[in-house]
Amino acid sequence: MTASGTVGALGEFALIDQVVARLPQGEHTLVGPGDDAAVLAAPGGRVVATTDLLVEGRHFRRDWSTALDVGHKAAAQNLVDVAAMGARPTALLVGLGVPPELPADWPLELADGLREECAQVGAAVVGGDVVRSDRVVVSVTALGDLDGWEPVLRGGARPGDVVAVAGRLGWAAAGLAVLSRGFRSPRALVDAHRRPEPPYPLGPAAARAGATSLIDVSDGLLADLGHVATASGVTIRLDSAAVPVASPLAETAAAFNLDPLTWVLTGGDDHALVATFPPDFWRPEGFVVIGEVGEPGEGPVLVDGRAYEAAAGYDHFA
Amino acid sequence: MTASGTVGALGEFALIDQVVARLPQGEHTLVGPGDDAAVLAAPGGRVVATTDLLVEGRHFRRDWSTALDVGHKAAAQNLVDVAAMGARPTALLVGLGVPPELPADWPLELADGLREECAQVGAAVVGGDVVRSDRVVVSVTALGDLDGWEPVLRGGARPGDVVAVAGRLGWAAAGLAVLSRGFRSPRALVDAHRRPEPPYPLGPAAARAGATSLIDVSDGLLADLGHVATASGVTIRLDSAAVPVASPLAETAAAFNLDPLTWVLTGGDDHALVATFPPDFWRPEGFVVIGEVGEPGEGPVLVDGRAYEAAAGYDHFA
Repeated sequence: MTASGTVGALGEFALIDQVVARLPQGEHTLVGPGDDAAVLAAPGGRVVATTDLLVEGRHFRRDWSTALDVGHKAAAQNLVDVAAMGARPTALLVGLGVPPELPADWPLELADGLREECAQVGAAVVGGDVVRSDRVVVSVTALGDLDGWEPVLRGGARPGDVVAVAGRLGWAAAGLAVLSRGFRSPRALVDAHRRPEPPYPLGPAAARAGATSLIDVSDGLLADLGHVATASGVTIRLDSAAVPVASPLAETAAAFNLDPLTWVLTGGDDHALVATFPPDFWRPEGFVVIGEVGEPGEGPVLVDGRAYEAAAGYDHFA
Repeated sequence: MTASGTVGALGEFALIDQVVARLPQGEHTLVGPGDDAAVLAAPGGRVVATTDLLVEGRHFRRDWSTALDVGHKAAAQNLVDVAAMGARPTALLVGLGVPPELPADWPLELADGLREECAQVGAAVVGGDVVRSDRVVVSVTALGDLDGWEPVLRGGARPGDVVAVAGRLGWAAAGLAVLSRGFRSPRALVDAHRRPEPPYPLGPAAARAGATSLIDVSDGLLADLGHVATASGVTIRLDSAAVPVASPLAETAAAFNLDPLTWVLTGGDDHALVATFPPDFWRPEGFVVIGEVGEPGEGPVLVDGRAYEAAAGYDHFA
């Protein structure tokens, strides 16, 4: 059953009731929505926590993405930050700002998207807040558990390590380029922009396999590896021929007369996981070696031995 | 040293660096800002979590409140939700949406306010996100630890319990009324609107003293006690003569020709703590008995035996 009318007609409390009714609780939830705060199990005695803010018009457009898409994306980009510490996501908290004239179905479908994405990792939406705002704003906080393992940080890469990536690179950027040019296909790229598919289980798997550093690609492969290189005090050398360029990207780039490597190296929002591993360690299936870690001094990240243009991260104010 | 110019001129990464530089980490922080996620100690094996979204123009006005005030208020209203579970707040995560033309000092002073409020309870800002938005938006998530104690929920009040309140009632509402009429004094009321002063330690203290229910007053005393009564399946009977009406409220209400009890019973945002205790239990100093818990069936909350008008909670879309 869906709500009729607008969120203003429905009212705050009925809206919250209907949203909460769509959010079953998980195995980690000790106290779910409806009290002053939620209570979650943290069996490892430590909790991993991260937050993001998504603003309509900046991070999503309601004419390009459904509420279900936005729910998936908002959940995914936070859940993968937990996975990128080597942890298992357990819970989301969600703040939602909505204009009164927003169709009441929109926040309900957003909740469906959040729930579905959480279900992929065994997490649940355990709390939230609904307020009025001129534009739709979605804040998401993800929590996770390390199961007693140490977190894998950005600063642990060492010269001699290999650099390996798991998940998609450049797909979301290519999908955004397609939409920006007024097209709706290739559908696989557009869908990738709307809903990332992070390789969640490979975060804890990389940690257990001895990864020395781990990060998810949110700003772009070069920008995020730049964070790793700077934090670790090393140079990261990529072999462009080893970086996977998926065929939909190559075909679409050719149609647009672009180099697909630009999307692959600088496009964010796919939330691939990039790890460094000692060279002789086993790497979990799904990770592809794309480079190696070198001594510091030659620049944070080199592609085929040279600095790559447009390697800077995305500045939200630029 | 403060930043010159606007956040747009400063840029996202420099802004984040300057904000983080103002946020020392606390005893619970295992990994602070700068990685994919923060890692916190959760020694009790459970974590308490709550989130709120504050939107400029709805929850604060930049001409009525300084950035320092907004930081205090945003932190306070989340930290007290943790305390209202009987827990000790340990950390905040903060999402900040800012327009590029915002003076760069604003987010830095916001960070100062967040830090100062956290310092009152031994918590720290451990992570966050900065994005661009048309209006200032602040999302805050607070985490806390129960130190092995059970959380105190809304649904535990039992007939025969006493109802007791700790902290201010009606001050913030009176301050808002003062500002709305174009005045800037009484200063104590205006300050109370700008920065609540929740009685944080009395949350865990009430839990340890055997409170059967516990909630913070964010929507108004009657509305929030209505949540307790409904969740507990009881009627709550308040004695209006026992409810403290502070003298600045009485004087200002007289000047405006209003009944101060309206502010005290229906005003939110002071974040007093209201608990129910078994009648013969010791109550922590600072709690004042204002009523008792009765059998269900006569309405969720009665004042002097009758329903009180305007007892509904604040609907953000009304």
